[in-house]
Amino acid sequence: MTRVTNLEPERIVRLEEDGPCVVLLDQRRLPDEVVELECRTVPELVDAIRALAVRGAPAIGVAAAYGLALATLRGDDLAEAERELAASRPTAVNLFWALERMRDDPTPARARALHAEEVERCKRMAAHAVVLFGPGTRALTHCNAGGLATGGYGSAVGALRAAWERGLLEHVLVGETRPLLQGSRLTAWELEAVGIPHAVIADSAAASMMARGDVDLIVTGADRIAANGDTANKIGTYSLAVLAKHHGIPLYVVAPTSTVDLATPTGAGIPLEERDPAEVSSRFPARNPAFDVTPAVLIAAIVTEHGVHRPPYAESLAA
Amino acid sequence: MTRVTNLEPERIVRLEEDGPCVVLLDQRRLPDEVVELECRTVPELVDAIRALAVRGAPAIGVAAAYGLALATLRGDDLAEAERELAASRPTAVNLFWALERMRDDPTPARARALHAEEVERCKRMAAHAVVLFGPGTRALTHCNAGGLATGGYGSAVGALRAAWERGLLEHVLVGETRPLLQGSRLTAWELEAVGIPHAVIADSAAASMMARGDVDLIVTGADRIAANGDTANKIGTYSLAVLAKHHGIPLYVVAPTSTVDLATPTGAGIPLEERDPAEVSSRFPARNPAFDVTPAVLIAAIVTEHGVHRPPYAESLAA
Repeated sequence: MTRVTNLEPERIVRLEEDGPCVVLLDQRRLPDEVVELECRTVPELVDAIRALAVRGAPAIGVAAAYGLALATLRGDDLAEAERELAASRPTAVNLFWALERMRDDPTPARARALHAEEVERCKRMAAHAVVLFGPGTRALTHCNAGGLATGGYGSAVGALRAAWERGLLEHVLVGETRPLLQGSRLTAWELEAVGIPHAVIADSAAASMMARGDVDLIVTGADRIAANGDTANKIGTYSLAVLAKHHGIPLYVVAPTSTVDLATPTGAGIPLEERDPAEVSSRFPARNPAFDVTPAVLIAAIVTEHGVHRPPYAESLAA
Repeated sequence: MTRVTNLEPERIVRLEEDGPCVVLLDQRRLPDEVVELECRTVPELVDAIRALAVRGAPAIGVAAAYGLALATLRGDDLAEAERELAASRPTAVNLFWALERMRDDPTPARARALHAEEVERCKRMAAHAVVLFGPGTRALTHCNAGGLATGGYGSAVGALRAAWERGLLEHVLVGETRPLLQGSRLTAWELEAVGIPHAVIADSAAASMMARGDVDLIVTGADRIAANGDTANKIGTYSLAVLAKHHGIPLYVVAPTSTVDLATPTGAGIPLEERDPAEVSSRFPARNPAFDVTPAVLIAAIVTEHGVHRPPYAESLAA
């Protein structure tokens, strides 16, 4: 049981030029163990991304950027490295965005700049998002859209941090996020570190909490936002959005523009990863969709580093 | 890994007069181990009920009936035994119903008759419920409303079995039912035993499956049904009911009349058990409501051994 009070960006993911290697805080082993994983080759990093040693759309993008810089330092074939990284996971558009951003300058300096920009975007998003919080807000979040997911500070958790610092946040309910428990393992760990009162719930208890009046708003991250505002995020987000609508509770998505995919018109065009059924049940047949798509109509606002975007998103996101 | 093809009522719960003891198939250890637990005193049985070695509203009632018969065989104070059993769990009304039914004749013969009647009710419910299934139905269920939950055959799972035998059921999605996984441990095990095709899903994936068009109907059991049809059942049932309404999918409750509590006018009067937060998270603060209440308006029909009851339930249940 390790308490972390200082989750600096370089602790989450960094490039070491001596070696060289990409070093990840292994998110599979949190919160029980705080251990680093060294990836000395691009295939090792691809395996780490697939196995969720690093996860969260912006953090996957940052890790991929460091992966291309690693390939440069190693003298690897860069086109091959980019192909391998692009094939690691399908849903988070940040991966493809970061690879494209690295193409003309696949250096450690460019990767570190991209990482620093993502963290800076989080802080700007959080500053915008606080207008969504009133005094004594009781929020609910899902999965982990924290510093671990973005390479530092966090998107949805960043918004919660900013609201907490301004005295606007009373409590956070954290959906545990089955099957891999990113909520109860990672988000609760991050909220504990910054001292925000919280309680983990089974994902299926969220509706009951809403009916009791214990939830004022829901805030999540995103893995890919289509041009019309349809949003792919961790499985269960769509469920929360439908439940929120039924209970008259707003659901807000907080994500950097690196998550917005204007080239994909609607959610129907977003590839949704299906993961190993054994993550759900190793004993019986199972299905394991890792993501779902929340239609824009169920999203009260999308917050990027440019501000709070309201419907219709086709216009507000493009602007 | 043990396959069971013959889950007879006396394997789930029985009274042995030599000893004497109440013998339970320990549901906490399924499906990995098929082991029996012998309760030689009423306090031992109360502990077993609290710890969910036996669970499911009708099965709790049957176990309590055997508990009173055990007290009789032991020469215990029967009023004290009844008080202890009544304090074991608060939500399932079958417990109180069974204790009352045993009061004037707390014998092994009465307990066995009550058990046999519950199983017979399940079979009658199932025969009524098949009218709700069309050819090729793809159903979703939650928690375990199978033979394990009722002392034999099952309520919701009984309906699925009857539909399967008539060639009306194509597939069952099983919500894993966090935190204690009664769906992925118990319902999947029962469906496997009778050969019904099924797949376990994370509870939060149900909405996504509905949106894809993979769910034709939802069928659950109940822990207590108020006079107006409001239904307390495993946490997550209310969530499914709201999601079902949004997607235009019917949700059916299948439960014997021993679960109907005409003395409680609405769901607001049903005591809902909160269990140990450590069942959800042993590391961080957590909340663990074990049940929620689904308003009658979200229930398309309630099936008892008397038939298929449609709204308004205040009239159809009383009749």
